[in-house]
Amino acid sequence: RYFVEEKDILERHKIFHKASHKGDFGKVLLVGGSKGKLGAIMLSAKAALRTGSGLISTFVPGFGLPIMQSSIHEVMVETCTGNDILDSAPENLDRFDTIAIGPGMGTDEKTAEALKNILESYKGKMVIDADALNIIAKRKDLKELITSQMILTPHLKEFERMVGDDVKYPEGRIEKALEFSQTYGCVLILKGLHSLITTPAGIQYFNPTGSQFLATGGTGDVLTGVVASYLGQGYSVENAALCGVYHHGLAGQLAGEDQRRGTIASDVIEKIPETYKNLGLS
Amino acid sequence: RYFVEEKDILERHKIFHKASHKGDFGKVLLVGGSKGKLGAIMLSAKAALRTGSGLISTFVPGFGLPIMQSSIHEVMVETCTGNDILDSAPENLDRFDTIAIGPGMGTDEKTAEALKNILESYKGKMVIDADALNIIAKRKDLKELITSQMILTPHLKEFERMVGDDVKYPEGRIEKALEFSQTYGCVLILKGLHSLITTPAGIQYFNPTGSQFLATGGTGDVLTGVVASYLGQGYSVENAALCGVYHHGLAGQLAGEDQRRGTIASDVIEKIPETYKNLGLS
Amino acid sequence: RYFVEEKDILERHKIFHKASHKGDFGKVLLVGGSKGKLGAIMLSAKAALRTGSGLISTFVPGFGLPIMQSSIHEVMVETCTGNDILDSAPENLDRFDTIAIGPGMGTDEKTAEALKNILESYKGKMVIDADALNIIAKRKDLKELITSQMILTPHLKEFERMVGDDVKYPEGRIEKALEFSQTYGCVLILKGLHSLITTPAGIQYFNPTGSQFLATGGTGDVLTGVVASYLGQGYSVENAALCGVYHHGLAGQLAGEDQRRGTIASDVIEKIPETYKNLGLS
Amino acid sequence: RYFVEEKDILERHKIFHKASHKGDFGKVLLVGGSKGKLGAIMLSAKAALRTGSGLISTFVPGFGLPIMQSSIHEVMVETCTGNDILDSAPENLDRFDTIAIGPGMGTDEKTAEALKNILESYKGKMVIDADALNIIAKRKDLKELITSQMILTPHLKEFERMVGDDVKYPEGRIEKALEFSQTYGCVLILKGLHSLITTPAGIQYFNPTGSQFLATGGTGDVLTGVVASYLGQGYSVENAALCGVYHHGLAGQLAGEDQRRGTIASDVIEKIPETYKNLGLS
Repeated sequence: RYFVEEKDILERHKIFHKASHKGDFGKVLLVGGSKGKLGAIMLSAKAALRTGSGLISTFVPGFGLPIMQSSIHEVMVETCTGNDILDSAPENLDRFDTIAIGPGMGTDEKTAEALKNILESYKGKMVIDADALNIIAKRKDLKELITSQMILTPHLKEFERMVGDDVKYPEGRIEKALEFSQTYGCVLILKGLHSLITTPAGIQYFNPTGSQFLATGGTGDVLTGVVASYLGQGYSVENAALCGVYHHGLAGQLAGEDQRRGTIASDVIEKIPETYKNLGLS
Repeated sequence: RYFVEEKDILERHKIFHKASHKGDFGKVLLVGGSKGKLGAIMLSAKAALRTGSGLISTFVPGFGLPIMQSSIHEVMVETCTGNDILDSAPENLDRFDTIAIGPGMGTDEKTAEALKNILESYKGKMVIDADALNIIAKRKDLKELITSQMILTPHLKEFERMVGDDVKYPEGRIEKALEFSQTYGCVLILKGLHSLITTPAGIQYFNPTGSQFLATGGTGDVLTGVVASYLGQGYSVENAALCGVYHHGLAGQLAGEDQRRGTIASDVIEKIPETYKNLGLS
Repeated sequence: RYFVEEKDILERHKIFHKASHKGDFGKVLLVGGSKGKLGAIMLSAKAALRTGSGLISTFVPGFGLPIMQSSIHEVMVETCTGNDILDSAPENLDRFDTIAIGPGMGTDEKTAEALKNILESYKGKMVIDADALNIIAKRKDLKELITSQMILTPHLKEFERMVGDDVKYPEGRIEKALEFSQTYGCVLILKGLHSLITTPAGIQYFNPTGSQFLATGGTGDVLTGVVASYLGQGYSVENAALCGVYHHGLAGQLAGEDQRRGTIASDVIEKIPETYKNLGLS
Repeated sequence: RYFVEEKDILERHKIFHKASHKGDFGKVLLVGGSKGKLGAIMLSAKAALRTGSGLISTFVPGFGLPIMQSSIHEVMVETCTGNDILDSAPENLDRFDTIAIGPGMGTDEKTAEALKNILESYKGKMVIDADALNIIAKRKDLKELITSQMILTPHLKEFERMVGDDVKYPEGRIEKALEFSQTYGCVLILKGLHSLITTPAGIQYFNPTGSQFLATGGTGDVLTGVVASYLGQGYSVENAALCGVYHHGLAGQLAGEDQRRGTIASDVIEKIPETYKNLGLS
C-alpha cells in the first residue's frame, strides 16, 4: 500500500513535444446519456478535452444530438438507433484508442445488451463507470468480460453493488478492493475522500488530492473523462488511473478554493489545465 | 423583532468536513417552468448548485427537457406528462431531501392539481414560491395544506393575493406577516428592501443585506434555489430562511458593485460562492 | 446643432434609490426574429437586461422559443401563431411600459400586417428598428402611424430607403434627418460614426462616443435594446435616445480596447455596466 | 523559400480607420456541417467573428439551424433543402465577399454535387478545407475547378489524398506543395508544425508561430474562419493566407500558455483579439 506523492505523478506522465499531432493526443469515444441524464456524458467529454485529448467522439441516444452539438463544439456526436436510451453499440470500435462507458446511461435491458456488445467486441483500453457498473453488478456474464485493459471507477455504493455485500468503511474497502481487482484482473478506482487505486498485481495506492467540495453531482463523470483522456494519450491503465485521480482531485481543490461549497463539476473541469501548470507539465 | 447580523448567520450555518459526501449536501427537487417561462426554474437550479447542493433534479414540462439539458450539465431532468405545462406530479417524492415549487410554473388548473398532489403527499421540508403562491392564494383547500415544514417566499403583491387584502407598506406588512405565519404555521419570507422573515413562533427578523440592483427579473427564483439548497443541506426551516435571504442579498450587493443597474439574476448566482469567502465559511 | 458631452448625459439620467423595485426599472417587450435571424432579437434582449430593465419579454416566431429559453434565462418568451416568421401581434400590449420592434424580423407581408397592428394599437413609447424600418419605408400607410412617442433608429441605408432618395454623406444627412423628424414628428437616431439624434423640435445632437469596432453585425440590435431599456425606465424619448446612443458608443469603445477588430456585439453588451461605473452612475 | 517574420505580417495587414463600416469588414459565407459534426462550422464562424468580419452567414443542413442560433447570436443562418447533410447550394452567392467551404461537411455524393455547384458558380475568393478537400481529392472534374482565387488548407493526410500519394515528411512536402500549387494555380496552406504556404508564383513561406497544443480537434476549422475573414476584409489570397496562419498560430501559443495540454479550439478563438494587441494592430 502506497500513498501517492507528486513525484510519482510526474514520473508517470508522458511529455508531448512540439511536433506532436492530434493522433498522439488520442482518439476517445465516450458512451452514455439517457433522457434527463445527458449532462453526465457532456461533463465527461468536456473533461477529456481539458485533459488533453486530440479527438473526442460521443455516442448518445438520438435526442441528445442537438443538445450535445449546441453545448460543445469541439466534439463529434454519433447516435444509437433509439431516441431516449442507449439501445445499440457504435460501429467500427477500432477507430478509437480508448472507450469510456457509463455516465448517465441508465440501466435499461437494451442498454445492458449494448454494453455487452461493446465489452465483447472492443479490444482496447476502457473506463467503466456509473450505470455501466450498475448493470455489470447484476450480470454474471458481464462480470466475466472484465479484462486487464479496463479501469473500473465505482464509488462506495456502486462498489457494494458489484461485490454484492456491505463494505465496512474505511477499513473493509481495502481488502475488498484487492480481492475484486485480483478476481477480475482489472484496475479498480474506488472513489472517496482518499480514492484507492488497486492494480491486479496487488498494489494499492491512496490518492492524496481532493476536497469535500468534490462531493457534488457530476464530479464522477469528470473523473471518467480525465482517466479516458490519459488512456487515449497512450498511458498504461495503471498510469492513467493514478494520474487521472490525482489531477481530478487537484482540480477539485483549486476549484474549491475559489468556489467553496458552491463548487460545481464544471468548475473542476475548468481547473484541469491549471493542474498542469501547478506541476510544471506541458 | 430582530435585525439580523453577520454573527447570527455564522452561528446558524452547518460546517461540512473533508469526509462529507454528496448525500450530506442534500438531494433537492425543483418543480416549475412552463412554455415561455422556463428560465425561472433554471435560475433556481443554478442557484441551488452554487449554494452547495449535492444533487439536484428538476421536474418540468416535456418541452423543457432539451432546453434544461443544454443549459445545465450538473442537473438531472424529469418531465411531467404534458408538453407545455406542469400537469402531473413526480413519483416517489421521498427520494428527495427537500422540494421547492413554483418558479415559472403558471397557474393552469391542471398545474394547481399537480401542486395539490405534491403538497398532500410530500412530508419533507418545502419552499413554496411564485405561481405556487398565486395558485394557493385562490384555493382555500390548498392553504390548509400549509405546514410548519414549509417556507413561503412571496413578494408584496403575491402576499397581498394570499391575504386577500392590500398591505400597507412598510408598517402593515409586519403585522400581516405575523398573522399569516401564525395562522398557517409556516415560515414566511416577505421579500422587499429589507426582507422580513417570520416564524410561526412569532419571531420576526429583518434581513440587512440587499440592493436596488436585485430589483430585476429572476432574482426571486434565485432566492428559491438558495433557500431550497439549505433545506437540502439539513438546515432547519428557520435557519434556511435566514441564511438563504442573507446570502442572496449579499450576493446581490457583490454583483451590484460590479454591474450596477446592469445586474442580472445570473450575476447574483455567480456571486454566491464569494459570500462564503466573505464570511469565512467553507 | 449640438455636440453631446458627458455632463449632458449625466443630467439626463434617472437615479434609482435603494427602495426601487422591478416596476421602477420597467417592463419591456422586444418584438422580432425570423428563421435564421433570431440572434438579432436575443442581442436586443441581452442589451436591455444589461442596461437595467426590470422585466423583459420577447415576442418571436414559434421556432424561436426553445432557442431563446436555452440562451437567456432572465427573459420571458411569447410566440406568434406562425413557426418561421412573425405573423401576428401579441395581445394586451398595455402590459408593457415600452415596445421595441424590428431586429431580425424580416419583411414578409404577414409581418408587415403584424407591425401595422402593433403601431395602431399600442399607445406607449416605442423603438422602431431594422426590418420594421424597411417595411415602413415601402408603406405610406405605416409611415402615417409614426408618432412623437417613437424613436426610429436607421443606419444610412435604411434611412435612404425611408426617404426614398440617396443621402449625401456626411453633409446631406443633417438636413434630411431634420426634415424627416419634423415631417413625422418622431425622434430619429441616424446611426453612423457620430450618430445624429434629431428631435421633432428641430434640435440635432451629435454623439461623441463610438469606434470603428462597432462596425460589426448585431451592434444595431444592441442599440435597440439599450434605448428600449431607457424608455422602460421612464426616460423621455429624447433622453432615452441620447443616453442610449452615448452608452452604446462608450461600451463599444471599452470593448474595442480589449478586443480590437475582433470585437463582437456580445462584447459591447457585456461592457454596458462598465459605462455606469465610468460615469459614476448607480 | 522564406521564413515569415513579424514585420512581414505587419506590412501585409490592412488598417481600418474610425469611419470604417460593416461593409469594409466584409461579408463572409461559411458552408459546412453535417449531423454530428456541426461544431466544426460553428468554430469557423466564431473564429471569423473574432478575426474582424463585419457580417457572417452560415449555410448548414436544416437540423443545424436551432443549434447555430442558440450558440452564436451574431451570425445569420441559412439552410439547404435537406435536414441531415448539405445537399444543395445557397442562392445568390454574389451577396458575399468570400466563401469558405468544408468544415464538418461530410463527403456524401449529394454534398459533392453541392460543392461542384458552388465552385462553378462563385467567382469571388474562397477557402477550401476539410471534407471539401476530401471530396475534391476523389474527383478530377472538381480539381479542374480550382482557381487562383482559392486557398486550399489541407493537413498532411488530406494533402496526401489530394496528390494521390504518400508525402515524405518533412522534406517531401516542400516539393509536392510547389508542384500542386503550380499545377492548379491556387494558394496552398499545408498545415503542420511550421505550416507551409505556397503561392502559384512559386514562393514558399514557413510560418513561425504555433504550438503542440494546437494539435486538438477543431483548430483546423478555426484557421478556415480566420483566413476567410481576411479574404472578406479585402486581403489578397497571399496576404490572407500568411496573416491567417500567423495569427492562428500566435493565438494557439497564447492559449497554450494558459491552458497547456488542455487547450481547446474555442480557447484559440478567444485569443485572436490578443494577437492584434500583441502586434500593435487596430
